[in-house]
Amino acid sequence: MDIPKYKTALIVGAGEGLSASLARLFAREKINVALAARKIEKLGPLVPAEVAQSITVSAFGGFLVAQQAVQRMLPNKHGAILFTGASASVKGYAQSAPFAMGKFALRGLAQSMARELSPQGIHIAHFVIDGGIRSAVRKEDAERPDSMLDPDAIAESYWNVLQQPRSAWSWELEVRPWVEKF
Amino acid sequence: MDIPKYKTALIVGAGEGLSASLARLFAREKINVALAARKIEKLGPLVPAEVAQSITVSAFGGFLVAQQAVQRMLPNKHGAILFTGASASVKGYAQSAPFAMGKFALRGLAQSMARELSPQGIHIAHFVIDGGIRSAVRKEDAERPDSMLDPDAIAESYWNVLQQPRSAWSWELEVRPWVEKF
Amino acid sequence: MDIPKYKTALIVGAGEGLSASLARLFAREKINVALAARKIEKLGPLVPAEVAQSITVSAFGGFLVAQQAVQRMLPNKHGAILFTGASASVKGYAQSAPFAMGKFALRGLAQSMARELSPQGIHIAHFVIDGGIRSAVRKEDAERPDSMLDPDAIAESYWNVLQQPRSAWSWELEVRPWVEKF
Amino acid sequence: MDIPKYKTALIVGAGEGLSASLARLFAREKINVALAARKIEKLGPLVPAEVAQSITVSAFGGFLVAQQAVQRMLPNKHGAILFTGASASVKGYAQSAPFAMGKFALRGLAQSMARELSPQGIHIAHFVIDGGIRSAVRKEDAERPDSMLDPDAIAESYWNVLQQPRSAWSWELEVRPWVEKF
Repeated sequence: MDIPKYKTALIVGAGEGLSASLARLFAREKINVALAARKIEKLGPLVPAEVAQSITVSAFGGFLVAQQAVQRMLPNKHGAILFTGASASVKGYAQSAPFAMGKFALRGLAQSMARELSPQGIHIAHFVIDGGIRSAVRKEDAERPDSMLDPDAIAESYWNVLQQPRSAWSWELEVRPWVEKF
Repeated sequence: MDIPKYKTALIVGAGEGLSASLARLFAREKINVALAARKIEKLGPLVPAEVAQSITVSAFGGFLVAQQAVQRMLPNKHGAILFTGASASVKGYAQSAPFAMGKFALRGLAQSMARELSPQGIHIAHFVIDGGIRSAVRKEDAERPDSMLDPDAIAESYWNVLQQPRSAWSWELEVRPWVEKF
Repeated sequence: MDIPKYKTALIVGAGEGLSASLARLFAREKINVALAARKIEKLGPLVPAEVAQSITVSAFGGFLVAQQAVQRMLPNKHGAILFTGASASVKGYAQSAPFAMGKFALRGLAQSMARELSPQGIHIAHFVIDGGIRSAVRKEDAERPDSMLDPDAIAESYWNVLQQPRSAWSWELEVRPWVEKF
Repeated sequence: MDIPKYKTALIVGAGEGLSASLARLFAREKINVALAARKIEKLGPLVPAEVAQSITVSAFGGFLVAQQAVQRMLPNKHGAILFTGASASVKGYAQSAPFAMGKFALRGLAQSMARELSPQGIHIAHFVIDGGIRSAVRKEDAERPDSMLDPDAIAESYWNVLQQPRSAWSWELEVRPWVEKF
């Protein structure tokens, strides 16, 4: 099996939670991490010395960022873009039409990109995160440790998808806590 | 069975094709029709005397128009909003990410509105139009009359959904020509 | 528009409720009705004089009946088969795996048949009936008349699908009461 | 993170290909493997010394086997059942209704079991294997090494799902070769 190797990761919409877990995981795997967020203050806690090798802050929307990233990947026929969706990506809930519109659209983008770019060697995946992500700072989350999504566990699933050889790529996968209704 | 009655229809994004068929059908059913399009010239052929009772032209986006329409319907707990989707509403094709994003988002909007507004008496439906709509002016379409979607036939399906009593409302339905691959 | 004409309808799994409504509707439309049920006693209330012209009782499973029906339709390149699904056709609920298996399988059958037979002129449709069907005999249903599916209303939706010209056929549609959660 | 530990694996429908890859992977991870197949001869090549500790051959259908497996897992509130689906699990193709019925039904089973058993500590997952699995014996497969699914790569994805802590379980994931149309 030919496991893909990656040198640099760009995390867009970086803040606490999943982004921080991804940043730590990439650092562990000796991958350079670049962070992008609309408000630079949010990046503070994410920037330990070991991940500060290459910081780029960007305010582009997801589509533009994805487009630019693809342009850099195409010449090498190598790269991966992972999108973070939610249960609202596949189910439009009452009282949350704008959120559903955004998440449905992101899934449409991810699926179009998967059909277009997989045969160019670029791995596109979409995660349906179904449930609340546990926070390290909210006390009440600590009381029910595994009934909320552990961001480190989600990050491992992202990493496993990145490790897939191109003969067996996942396009979409769901993750949810064992006790979550769906 | 308590078949709903409607007095006025607003057709947004009006042009030729399906919109013209809907305008004619509503006129046949003695329903006042209001048309909205970004370019007023496109409305010309749609405005026979019998549907000209109430013309409003609007350039609002679908979400805003839908929001406004809902505000008028809520006090009476009566009304219907039908959304026109495409195969790209449920499948993101290569080389057409922006179209998929728009159509996925519209479907998310329609689903959120359905969950929110159906129990308020407002019927929300989403049509997945899968195939090309036959044009009255393109000669080549006339050569294969029923292998493309007849806009009058689609309009009848819209009408049938509008006639559904609230005990058995459709939220989503697909229409495609008999010979269309899917 | 070329609206299809049908002479005979076979209702499989006939009993009270939706089947009875369909039988009455077909009789109204001067269509001969044949009924099939595993227990012939269940057919009694469904057989008014006007629908008794052609009664066939069959105990074949859905797949075999569908196969046989198709064999009769293919030479004329004309016919329609409508399948009755449920919310369990698209969502497997806890504590009901056998029901989900049956309804998922029926949907798979309907989709395969649609892809295979639509281009042969045979209209295949699958209804996702989401909610309880109101019974004429259960008293408590009468107290909330339109919060349960009226079987006559569902039958009208079946009829509307049968009336679709082949340029714009529906493959799948959902029906549910306005107040049903989904 | 609390990574689940497993002692024994039962592979049902075992033969060459994916089952053999899973057997090898479990042996590598020091997990006892039991194999079940309708024809015992098919098991021969799968039984290296290191996995022969516990061989059970069973001809039960998937549902019965799953039921029995669950009975053994429930007292410990620990266990996992992974189902192998195909593109036919979510799309009914022409000319293959029986296969679609079986795969749709299996997915319905898996989804019902997931809703029922996840909150009991049993991890249920369904894989949509989209594409042909590469065979070690078919010469033509060797010519296009990564345009078919490598069974060892699929087995790694199964393993990764088994390693997920219960705070972030996947229920469904797709795998397909990078060049596969979908």
